[in-house]
Amino acid sequence: MLYEQIGEEVRNYIDQLTKPRGSLGRLEELAIDIAKMTGERFPSVTPPGVLVFAADHGIAKEGVSAYPQEVTAQMVLNFVRGGAAINVFSKQIGATFSVVDVGVAVDIHEERVIDEKVAYGTNNFANEQAMTKEEAERAVQAGYRQANAMIDHGIRCLIVGEMGIGNTTTASALLAAISGRNVAELVGKGTGVHDEALKRKRDVIERTLAKHKPNASDAIDLLTKIGGLEIAAMAGAMIAAAERRIPILLDGFICTVAALIAERLDKRVVHYMIAGHRSQEPGHRIALELLHKEPLVDLGMRLGEGSGAAVAFPIVHMATAMLHMATFSSANVATGSDHDE
Amino acid sequence: MLYEQIGEEVRNYIDQLTKPRGSLGRLEELAIDIAKMTGERFPSVTPPGVLVFAADHGIAKEGVSAYPQEVTAQMVLNFVRGGAAINVFSKQIGATFSVVDVGVAVDIHEERVIDEKVAYGTNNFANEQAMTKEEAERAVQAGYRQANAMIDHGIRCLIVGEMGIGNTTTASALLAAISGRNVAELVGKGTGVHDEALKRKRDVIERTLAKHKPNASDAIDLLTKIGGLEIAAMAGAMIAAAERRIPILLDGFICTVAALIAERLDKRVVHYMIAGHRSQEPGHRIALELLHKEPLVDLGMRLGEGSGAAVAFPIVHMATAMLHMATFSSANVATGSDHDE
Repeated sequence: MLYEQIGEEVRNYIDQLTKPRGSLGRLEELAIDIAKMTGERFPSVTPPGVLVFAADHGIAKEGVSAYPQEVTAQMVLNFVRGGAAINVFSKQIGATFSVVDVGVAVDIHEERVIDEKVAYGTNNFANEQAMTKEEAERAVQAGYRQANAMIDHGIRCLIVGEMGIGNTTTASALLAAISGRNVAELVGKGTGVHDEALKRKRDVIERTLAKHKPNASDAIDLLTKIGGLEIAAMAGAMIAAAERRIPILLDGFICTVAALIAERLDKRVVHYMIAGHRSQEPGHRIALELLHKEPLVDLGMRLGEGSGAAVAFPIVHMATAMLHMATFSSANVATGSDHDE
Repeated sequence: MLYEQIGEEVRNYIDQLTKPRGSLGRLEELAIDIAKMTGERFPSVTPPGVLVFAADHGIAKEGVSAYPQEVTAQMVLNFVRGGAAINVFSKQIGATFSVVDVGVAVDIHEERVIDEKVAYGTNNFANEQAMTKEEAERAVQAGYRQANAMIDHGIRCLIVGEMGIGNTTTASALLAAISGRNVAELVGKGTGVHDEALKRKRDVIERTLAKHKPNASDAIDLLTKIGGLEIAAMAGAMIAAAERRIPILLDGFICTVAALIAERLDKRVVHYMIAGHRSQEPGHRIALELLHKEPLVDLGMRLGEGSGAAVAFPIVHMATAMLHMATFSSANVATGSDHDE
């Protein structure tokens, strides 16, 4: 599926650029990886596209978040008005930006929000299944459709973000099911919840897994039993990007769990993923290990929205820019003895 | 010297932005630091300026580098023609870019190279002092003058790069003198030298320190006995930036050793420094510890030229852009309970 031969050509070409061999470290590996993904010897990742999916989570009723559920809809409006972190970061990286309502609990009266609403939030998975199988499939398709639309408009790298009060708990439950790891290992304070909320979060996940017994290798079963609608859409968007040979720059914990869902829908999608940043959420490390990905930056961030990926994007851009350096022969620079090693 | 009060105002303001408190991690600390340096509540770091100083090192005669000495001059030409890594990275971050010949061993016949030549390279410090005290002072002043010129032209963040075959050995000797650490701890393979060259490099540094006994707290004594001309100029440039309240984004090993020289000329300059990246050169960790700085990225790079700082620059830019997010009240978003923590 990857263009291995072109990757090797780019690897050899990088060793002709005017710099000691290997001295640009991960930038070199990134350039080779992107060449393999895209099949281009001089790939471009600009403009990037940032696609934020928003949805609500019934589990928020259990008091697992520091924020009231209304914040999901309020932040969706903040996104279209340009006030959120992902907006200022998207602007800086020259990204095409869209927000998709795939399951916010209230109607969003704002035409700049793309309407792909599958349901008014998920059910509380502590009590019942989060959604129907059909809803899970529709949410995946919504993400797939919107990513394709963005790619049709010319983006060359996809960042998938999310907004959904309670979605750290949903993602933690998914990861617990997928990894089989102890819930206490995965679940941190998230965005600042108190110790009591933390205990509630862990308890509710343990009870849910015992009750629903989701099939760890079946993406639709996981989504149906746990959620969430935006996680399903993110996975769908990643599949579209991989099909179109567009690199996917992963954000933090929730995005990486969506990547694990995407992997369960189509194993090949993982080849198109680049880990952007390491989140402070403890489960993120485990999710990244399962994907065999090492993030580009570690800046103590834990916001979501795609913000960590946006902050990492310039590094990916630098890696592709590097290929436009002069070669030793074109610049008339003597090569070093390290070239004989 | 720092605007502590403005820093506190910015810290409080950041907690009103539409994101969980602390969730942008180091970006928040960076924004506060830059506000303290500049005295601005909404500081700007664009455009950045990249100032590359080039000079030769007599120590290169000892076979400590994988590259022949001619490469210094060849790379200077590559810089003005736009073919080096720092060129493609400077372009991407919208930087003003200049190359200054402060001590290349041959005449550079290229008017785009700024001529501040103090000498045709340093003497081989294994045998004699690298330069005179007057030359060291003139090189510092050349850097000071060129940084001021760039700041006069409007740059808002300074990246100082270098080119000089053999300068890893010079910087290692300086760091060994400054830190008092064992030479074997500090000296790595650099840009790919063989084991034999590595041993030569360590031996020559040990002999030099025993012979010249440089005063670890006297910048001019260190520069005079060890070198190099571009390291002196880099230190001078940093002092100019600090005086003008312009943040300095540090590059890798050689740049960080120049920062330690600058600190010895004026202690206050350290407050204006941000560590850009962690180099693979083993001494870099020790140099950063002495400055009490933690780098923004760790990408396995070891090129110099200012390239690691340029790759880290977008993160600094993101930190200042963050301050243009909406606040909870301006965006009508409910605050979370984490605000009571």
